[in-house]
Amino acid sequence: MTQRAGTSHRAAPEHTHPDDVLVLTALAALADPVRIQLVRELAGSCEWTRSCGSFDVPVGKAALSHHFAVLRNAGLVEQRDEGPKRVNRLRREEFEARFPGLLDLVLSPDPRDR
Amino acid sequence: MTQRAGTSHRAAPEHTHPDDVLVLTALAALADPVRIQLVRELAGSCEWTRSCGSFDVPVGKAALSHHFAVLRNAGLVEQRDEGPKRVNRLRREEFEARFPGLLDLVLSPDPRDR
Repeated sequence: MTQRAGTSHRAAPEHTHPDDVLVLTALAALADPVRIQLVRELAGSCEWTRSCGSFDVPVGKAALSHHFAVLRNAGLVEQRDEGPKRVNRLRREEFEARFPGLLDLVLSPDPRDR
Repeated sequence: MTQRAGTSHRAAPEHTHPDDVLVLTALAALADPVRIQLVRELAGSCEWTRSCGSFDVPVGKAALSHHFAVLRNAGLVEQRDEGPKRVNRLRREEFEARFPGLLDLVLSPDPRDR
């Protein structure tokens, strides 16, 4: 795949559309407490307002980069570079169309999930 | 917890009710190809008709025992000993009540999931 030159020196992130994601890949992406936290924070934020460094998760930069790659690969997150920042949106509608109800299970507040 | 003496020398299996399962635990239990296969075969069988050795999965006895423990712990499977056999049922209704739609995502045939 050819990619247009961006405003950043990094390669533009690769994405997988939810329609091309296996259910096993989607479940594995969500079966992680850090990634659940990222998805929940994204769901509570306006699209494209959250940079990767703005999340309240207890992991280093390399691990965070891996978690975002897993989320992109599962069709959960879309990213783009804006100058020095990489900003994010949750692919809520597309993911819901492919896996009805799954995101809601993760986003619903539940007293058992602390 | 006290347990009645069974007909087997093994300890009776411990179970977790779906109502006591965290969403992370449920997702992690289903995010595995062997366990998805076990759940799918159970869904296609009458309750209590399938012994643990009757599943078409490419794992050894110890690994299979671990997979069933994960499924019990996630409220997905109930087991009981009948003589020398340990037989299984999928906790379909209870799990559906706790995590609506989740089991259907795993059980629905999908040409992308091969």
